[in-house]
Amino acid sequence: MVENFDEWFHDILEQANITDSRYPIKGMAIWMPYGFQIRKHTMAIIKKLLDKDHEEVLFPMLIPETELAKEGIHVKGFEDEVYWITKGGQTELNEQLALRPTSETAIYPMYALWIRTHIDLPIKYYQIVNTFRYETKHTRPLIRVREITTFKEAHTAHATKEESDEQIQDFIEIYKEFFDDLGIPYLISKRPEWDKFPGADYTMAFDAIMPNGKTLQVGTIHNLGQTFAKTFDITFEDKEGEHKLVYQTCAGLSDRVIATVIGIHGDDKGLRLPPKVSPNQVTIIPILFKKGKEEVLAKCDEIKEQLESKGLRVQLDDRDIRPGKKFNDWELKGTPVKLELGPRDLENNITIAMQRDVEEKIELPLDDNLADSVIELLDKTTENLSSSAWNFQEEHVKFTEDIDEIPELVEAGNVVKFYWCGDEAIGKEIEEKTGYDILGIQEEVSEGKCIASDNDAKYIALIAKTY
Amino acid sequence: MVENFDEWFHDILEQANITDSRYPIKGMAIWMPYGFQIRKHTMAIIKKLLDKDHEEVLFPMLIPETELAKEGIHVKGFEDEVYWITKGGQTELNEQLALRPTSETAIYPMYALWIRTHIDLPIKYYQIVNTFRYETKHTRPLIRVREITTFKEAHTAHATKEESDEQIQDFIEIYKEFFDDLGIPYLISKRPEWDKFPGADYTMAFDAIMPNGKTLQVGTIHNLGQTFAKTFDITFEDKEGEHKLVYQTCAGLSDRVIATVIGIHGDDKGLRLPPKVSPNQVTIIPILFKKGKEEVLAKCDEIKEQLESKGLRVQLDDRDIRPGKKFNDWELKGTPVKLELGPRDLENNITIAMQRDVEEKIELPLDDNLADSVIELLDKTTENLSSSAWNFQEEHVKFTEDIDEIPELVEAGNVVKFYWCGDEAIGKEIEEKTGYDILGIQEEVSEGKCIASDNDAKYIALIAKTY
Repeated sequence: MVENFDEWFHDILEQANITDSRYPIKGMAIWMPYGFQIRKHTMAIIKKLLDKDHEEVLFPMLIPETELAKEGIHVKGFEDEVYWITKGGQTELNEQLALRPTSETAIYPMYALWIRTHIDLPIKYYQIVNTFRYETKHTRPLIRVREITTFKEAHTAHATKEESDEQIQDFIEIYKEFFDDLGIPYLISKRPEWDKFPGADYTMAFDAIMPNGKTLQVGTIHNLGQTFAKTFDITFEDKEGEHKLVYQTCAGLSDRVIATVIGIHGDDKGLRLPPKVSPNQVTIIPILFKKGKEEVLAKCDEIKEQLESKGLRVQLDDRDIRPGKKFNDWELKGTPVKLELGPRDLENNITIAMQRDVEEKIELPLDDNLADSVIELLDKTTENLSSSAWNFQEEHVKFTEDIDEIPELVEAGNVVKFYWCGDEAIGKEIEEKTGYDILGIQEEVSEGKCIASDNDAKYIALIAKTY
Repeated sequence: MVENFDEWFHDILEQANITDSRYPIKGMAIWMPYGFQIRKHTMAIIKKLLDKDHEEVLFPMLIPETELAKEGIHVKGFEDEVYWITKGGQTELNEQLALRPTSETAIYPMYALWIRTHIDLPIKYYQIVNTFRYETKHTRPLIRVREITTFKEAHTAHATKEESDEQIQDFIEIYKEFFDDLGIPYLISKRPEWDKFPGADYTMAFDAIMPNGKTLQVGTIHNLGQTFAKTFDITFEDKEGEHKLVYQTCAGLSDRVIATVIGIHGDDKGLRLPPKVSPNQVTIIPILFKKGKEEVLAKCDEIKEQLESKGLRVQLDDRDIRPGKKFNDWELKGTPVKLELGPRDLENNITIAMQRDVEEKIELPLDDNLADSVIELLDKTTENLSSSAWNFQEEHVKFTEDIDEIPELVEAGNVVKFYWCGDEAIGKEIEEKTGYDILGIQEEVSEGKCIASDNDAKYIALIAKTY
């Protein structure tokens, strides 16, 4: 799988009924029923986290050209990627309409209307929507697409710079909790100046290391300062009656989150889904013979009900096919726990439980404690998936003080940490010399020498091969 | 409100924080936080109903022109309403892409790939998505829009015509249950030939009578026969090894459902939300004086927790404003039950409960039964809203055998039932003469004379002023 991760990833999406890429537009795929359920449970986690302190809204998908063009730096960052509507019916439109590539220019003109005084602040809204990018690069389902079907974007406005900086920290904490729930490890860094969001003061990013060592940007958090406030004239009257510009932040997540759940936890046999997002947390597979068939099925129904009453998502696979085929199917689809029940098990009043992440089979008594035992196995699965993923990340982040070592380390599937003085010209020189991208600054340091200059190091930075 | 329903409706949407129509594209509005919650709870009901027997999926939003154009009758029905993308970035696209007006032509080419044999049937998929219509008529938020933000479309394929007809009945039952949950009355009719869905064999529709007597089409169910199966070559191998075309149905609901919840239940004071979809089912309003303030607030928190533990959605309005203002706010926003608690109530160990739909205040003891008492009030509210809406509908459907009476009855705010022979030319003559639309056929009859010809009546049909 590591050797040919991209192929593995492509194949598993169709085999496990996650997406179908045969839709007749490049870079746009269909969420199939099983994939849709994974997506739904994943989004439920982030919604729950955001709903504590943010409000969900929904903005129109189209943006008039005049609004999109107002913020110069921003539009420059997106102008090659925007889809344009020029016709309604048989009529040429007076003004072309953009399919949102992201919603700053849809939302902020309204913030200018809604925000009047300090009492209206902070505003913390989010939406989960589809956005569009006319990608000219090679597209990959969930990773590089033309329709981002699942774009969570949060947009906040504050009275002071301090509050906006605190909001950035809040988003970091929310994202940490989100990825922890998924068992997905992350590297947090401050993106270099030349790679920040168009219009932002600074950008914080979450990257995940995929099994082939390439990193995937899975979450971004931007402090927008007053750039958009100036452009869209978003002001408020403070307590003293003075009119001031707001400070803004925004933060995004996308389909890529689900790409990491699939790619990072998966193995040669298929998916290994974290229980929190698995469509079925438990799949019951009856072993049926002519004799005792009804008794076994009745017991399976009973077990299903017993587990569901504890809030578990349970599937009873009673298809008329060989049990071996069922085991393979659910292995591929990554059900965290499978329960097998045949006539002899029924006689012995046990069921055979198998965790997806470990090979062993264990016997569980069919008694009142069954649900608790299953929940324990699910919790173990969650822990195992998370710890093995974090171990992988730890093993694949290497430090070097020698710039010539970087290519070898990266080609071996690592992200590389190095000392950097922070100078933009030197940074770009490092990228050019190695051929990789600087992800960003991970921490400040007061020791060491820059890897590519005589300057003192100011930061530990990360460099990697990226998606 | 009845006198000027359209104005009332327009105003309440903004006052109650449901939508904001000041977005700079005509016919596209923003779902504000309170409205978004109503939408969310409404969609949760239909999802739950569909999930029993259908699977949720998500198709791309764009449709290549070649696919959209394949089904001739269908495309003719939509060609004046389709938004076209002609540019990606600075590049002219080789093929223009349509913003889906509905998804038949996006979904059915994939059905042709997915359906191989009778084992693959039936397929029952649905999605909830945004769709687009370039409306040239006067737009109204939630009622006639250019971005339908909430389009629930279900698409099924079957081996036989009988199964497809049964599916139509299933959809009717699902929609009945859905609208019953919302307390929204409906008229079900079979649309006349000239008003059926472009490409359908026949269309069944749900219409709701708004307070001004105009009807709003709120749900449609189409038997597509084999029209699309022929166009997109959707075939299956039956048990005998013969290749056959599938039979298809589709069924839609939209934002208009929420328009009925607002418009039909609302009154001069604002919204009256059915508990199932109200963002807060209970709003607690503390009456605070300097003395005993903390004790009252502590008790309010306790009540909130007590009610939430029973699964209720509860808001404690502890804003620093006059209680009278809070009562007005929540009256406007339609919270089904308000609980008032002041220091004297605390002394007497009671809270004052007010249902939104009736004027009286009642005292509820602050004991372990409080949640049950509140749930009883919520259930009463649900019943009251539903029965008063159904009474309104009953009073506003009138039968006549005299075509000259129709205008007077319709202008007085009624839907009119009449005998019809079913002949298309006669039907169109009735529409032309009265100036209203025939909604469709409600039932077959074997008595009576057609209202506009010498023919025997075959049907009872409905005619109305429509949105």
